[in-house]
Amino acid sequence: MNVIDAILTRRSIRKFTGEVVSDEQVNTLLKAGFQAPSAHNLQPWHFIVVKDKETLEEMAANHPYAKMLPQSGCGIIVCGDSNREARVGFLVEDCSAAIQNILLAAHGIGLGAVWCGIYPDTDRTAEFSRILNLPGNIIPVGLIAVGYPDEEKAPQDRFDKTKIHYEKW
Amino acid sequence: MNVIDAILTRRSIRKFTGEVVSDEQVNTLLKAGFQAPSAHNLQPWHFIVVKDKETLEEMAANHPYAKMLPQSGCGIIVCGDSNREARVGFLVEDCSAAIQNILLAAHGIGLGAVWCGIYPDTDRTAEFSRILNLPGNIIPVGLIAVGYPDEEKAPQDRFDKTKIHYEKW
Repeated sequence: MNVIDAILTRRSIRKFTGEVVSDEQVNTLLKAGFQAPSAHNLQPWHFIVVKDKETLEEMAANHPYAKMLPQSGCGIIVCGDSNREARVGFLVEDCSAAIQNILLAAHGIGLGAVWCGIYPDTDRTAEFSRILNLPGNIIPVGLIAVGYPDEEKAPQDRFDKTKIHYEKW
Repeated sequence: MNVIDAILTRRSIRKFTGEVVSDEQVNTLLKAGFQAPSAHNLQPWHFIVVKDKETLEEMAANHPYAKMLPQSGCGIIVCGDSNREARVGFLVEDCSAAIQNILLAAHGIGLGAVWCGIYPDTDRTAEFSRILNLPGNIIPVGLIAVGYPDEEKAPQDRFDKTKIHYEKW
């Protein structure tokens, strides 16, 4: 799939067939995540891949918008290492770029995915840290539920020229 | 260009020929930015497109890593509207996804680009707000310098299996 088409047609997929993605597919997604740019190229991310049904259910129970996670069959939690990038705002930006790469890669290989925000919601951050046994310096930025899509969504045109400004505001 | 190839081969480009990108190319980049996912689909971003040489030079003078900006010929500043998304952490994530889309789209159409971080650096945020005349609720998250590349960079393999964890940390 062409990169421009992928960007323009990707949608958040929240219904999944339950067929579990393969290790090879997961690796493709992780490779995409690793290739994101980062401030000073510090690459301060970690990726946690969860397929265990109990853990998926526990994460779903501790996130208001991740009820679909167990059915997706795979969660990828993108975390930032605040020892490596102490400026948390930039850490979050780096991890967000990695997440967007993963979402586009999933779409590009025919999978569906949705980004469920964790940080900076304090409850979600604490619960995901507990569930995944994260060290104190590791911040869970976002959860990606990924699987085989069981819904088709037409592209949504979000172009809005009132949000474009030339030269100055 | 295939989306996976685009993700794997994109590099930050900091040398530019000086040839200015066309309005059509800028529109392709903006369309890509608009298509990013956002928390609750609030789409809280604004895009400021700067080609004016004086403004490019003033921005470059107020950012430690944007000296290449005047030579690139075009800056796109991705901003977040904190009236639309009050949770600034999520606002930054949304804008970061938009920035990553723009970087990949630029690569996909043969342009070069680099993401220069602004927020949460307080000096840069204040200076860019002043230069671009931003209202108080608008946060400049990142600057993208984009133009015709005057350097070729081989893909950098950032895959690091020590940063992958299965099931738990």
